[in-house]
Amino acid sequence: MENFTFYSPTYFVFGKDQETAVGTYVKRFGGSRVLVHFGGGSAEKSGLLNKVRQSLRDSGLAFVELGGVQPNPRDGLVYQGIDLCRKEGVDFILAVGGGSVIDSAKAIAAGAVYDGDFWDFYEGRTVTEALPIGTVLTISAAGSEGSGDSVITKEEGMYKRATTGEALRPKFSILNPALTQTLPAYQTACGITDIMAHLYERYLTNTKDVEVTDRLIEALLLTMIKEGPKAVADQNDYQSRANIMWAGMLAHNNSCGVGRSQDWTSHNIEHELSALYDCAHGAGLAVVMPAVFTYNLHHDVMRFAQVAVRVWGCQMDFAHPEETAKAGIEALRAFLKSIGMPGNFAELGAKAEDIDELAHKCCWGDVNTGTTGGFVPLNEDDVKAIYRLML
Amino acid sequence: MENFTFYSPTYFVFGKDQETAVGTYVKRFGGSRVLVHFGGGSAEKSGLLNKVRQSLRDSGLAFVELGGVQPNPRDGLVYQGIDLCRKEGVDFILAVGGGSVIDSAKAIAAGAVYDGDFWDFYEGRTVTEALPIGTVLTISAAGSEGSGDSVITKEEGMYKRATTGEALRPKFSILNPALTQTLPAYQTACGITDIMAHLYERYLTNTKDVEVTDRLIEALLLTMIKEGPKAVADQNDYQSRANIMWAGMLAHNNSCGVGRSQDWTSHNIEHELSALYDCAHGAGLAVVMPAVFTYNLHHDVMRFAQVAVRVWGCQMDFAHPEETAKAGIEALRAFLKSIGMPGNFAELGAKAEDIDELAHKCCWGDVNTGTTGGFVPLNEDDVKAIYRLML
Repeated sequence: MENFTFYSPTYFVFGKDQETAVGTYVKRFGGSRVLVHFGGGSAEKSGLLNKVRQSLRDSGLAFVELGGVQPNPRDGLVYQGIDLCRKEGVDFILAVGGGSVIDSAKAIAAGAVYDGDFWDFYEGRTVTEALPIGTVLTISAAGSEGSGDSVITKEEGMYKRATTGEALRPKFSILNPALTQTLPAYQTACGITDIMAHLYERYLTNTKDVEVTDRLIEALLLTMIKEGPKAVADQNDYQSRANIMWAGMLAHNNSCGVGRSQDWTSHNIEHELSALYDCAHGAGLAVVMPAVFTYNLHHDVMRFAQVAVRVWGCQMDFAHPEETAKAGIEALRAFLKSIGMPGNFAELGAKAEDIDELAHKCCWGDVNTGTTGGFVPLNEDDVKAIYRLML
Repeated sequence: MENFTFYSPTYFVFGKDQETAVGTYVKRFGGSRVLVHFGGGSAEKSGLLNKVRQSLRDSGLAFVELGGVQPNPRDGLVYQGIDLCRKEGVDFILAVGGGSVIDSAKAIAAGAVYDGDFWDFYEGRTVTEALPIGTVLTISAAGSEGSGDSVITKEEGMYKRATTGEALRPKFSILNPALTQTLPAYQTACGITDIMAHLYERYLTNTKDVEVTDRLIEALLLTMIKEGPKAVADQNDYQSRANIMWAGMLAHNNSCGVGRSQDWTSHNIEHELSALYDCAHGAGLAVVMPAVFTYNLHHDVMRFAQVAVRVWGCQMDFAHPEETAKAGIEALRAFLKSIGMPGNFAELGAKAEDIDELAHKCCWGDVNTGTTGGFVPLNEDDVKAIYRLML
């Protein structure tokens, strides 16, 4: 295990009806003039936004609103949010929505107290300061409710880039599993896939002697395998959504990723797909992960065999561990298909003729190293080959 | 899953040599006049205390010292610490040691800012305020480095009682696994047993639909089973101690215990043993746990069968699940014996003739309900029967 620091100071409020007290939490964590940030019409239609407004009023808090966050949130709205915060003297940002809304709120929070262009933070500058953030989560997926991470898409060129910083961790997050019950099965499945990807990206490590974090990741994957299909099959199954919601937070607050190298190849390769085609991030990951794992299998056959046996219940083939490793990848592929996720480029709406561009952006767009991935460093040719495995 | 809140704002600094920067962390979390609280001679002899003093001096911090914390820490030293804090205007308490030192530091931290007798907090009064605390952990066991809990023994009558409060969570905890390498095998094993007890106390629940926390607890138990014997066999095995140290924190910061009823029968029954005989808490738990689980087996056979299969690798006896459940308890008993823990009253130094007194104190001393335990409410006769299973 490697040296690390771990800091997760978010106050989590979990369970039914907790969003009705959101005003008291905003006050507790120092807010007085609030920006309420949200997405499309679903938070309005479900009545959630009215509950939030009422609670803020009951707590005597002033607020302004900025809706319209899209999936794969864009820099354009972030600039609007920063202007609004400055004009209105906002001192607290409340994100009501899923990972896209929370990520957009984090970008606004960092940008509002920074003299330069907020995009600097998505090109490598460290976030050291930000307005405080609170969240009311409506989708179990990104884990942004408990992380210091944010991903934004730059409209010019459609680049999707990430930043991270302790100042971006929410002060509080309200996790009511019932709020996710309005999600269609497809979006539920996309969230499940994203959570599983966060776990696999941490599982694929080159660090030795990490039994505790291996076991924790396996525990959360096993939870997703049991609870995921129940949530997809029955929108009203509160308990499966509760299990998924807590697992989704733990999958990405890094308690199970500390002290070990991590991968993030699948995320990097997927980000180019959702940036170009505006597909759901989880759907993209469902296509990307089996391809990446198949390509990287020989880097550490025993690691893939371990997850196959411990998580997917495959029998260990002691004479041919590689067969077990492959069986684990096939089990993942079958699981993702069973919950309704796409399995290839065509089902995703991606095009073979874009592969060169996708691979180039992936390896050269974010950093200038020409490679991507923490488990196996992959160059542009490798990434092209991986995209071709998805055809 | 039940509604819950979860808040773990401790900044964890994990790994080799991290204690040399302790002064910077004290400053970061607002300390200027520090009480350094520690136990016996081992922290002095190992050179740890000198490293801590040097770091505090390097950061320009004033400090006073109070050593002498014993295992099963006593109220007498807490009163001394409170007086010292007031006299010296202490604004930060730094605990250098294991659970006993940290628990004693927490009692001082709460008492120093309270007008009444600090013992009130151990008789049911809520802790709402305390001096900030930091820790340099030297034993993986109690989990006090990441919890808001504290257990103190009242010398008059030898009552061992607990309190809890968010204000008692450390601001930072430095976890260097190498600092635990000076521990003899017996104390290492006591710590392992305590960590496993924290997991079992949470596992034994009456709440349904808690797959995520079940799986997390199992993950940490599996880690202890793999890494524990390595740490006991080889004092210098850094990696096993690293895995145990992170597991020990997670076992008790409640991330795997949220949203479910918990038991704490074994702890309550053990506390009377270590209070009366001053035995190591972990050693007492090794004797208590198999007895409690055997007594409670029929309350939920399938829960005991689940841990037997998933954690201990027992084969499920589908015709007779009770046999599997029992096999799991026997596997735990054999494991504890294999790491050198006592298995009965005689090996612990406890006496059959004290059983009536032990059971009475356990059921009537702490609360006035006459029962103990969250999994199965047990009365005085039940507790007597459980103690007799340990003969």
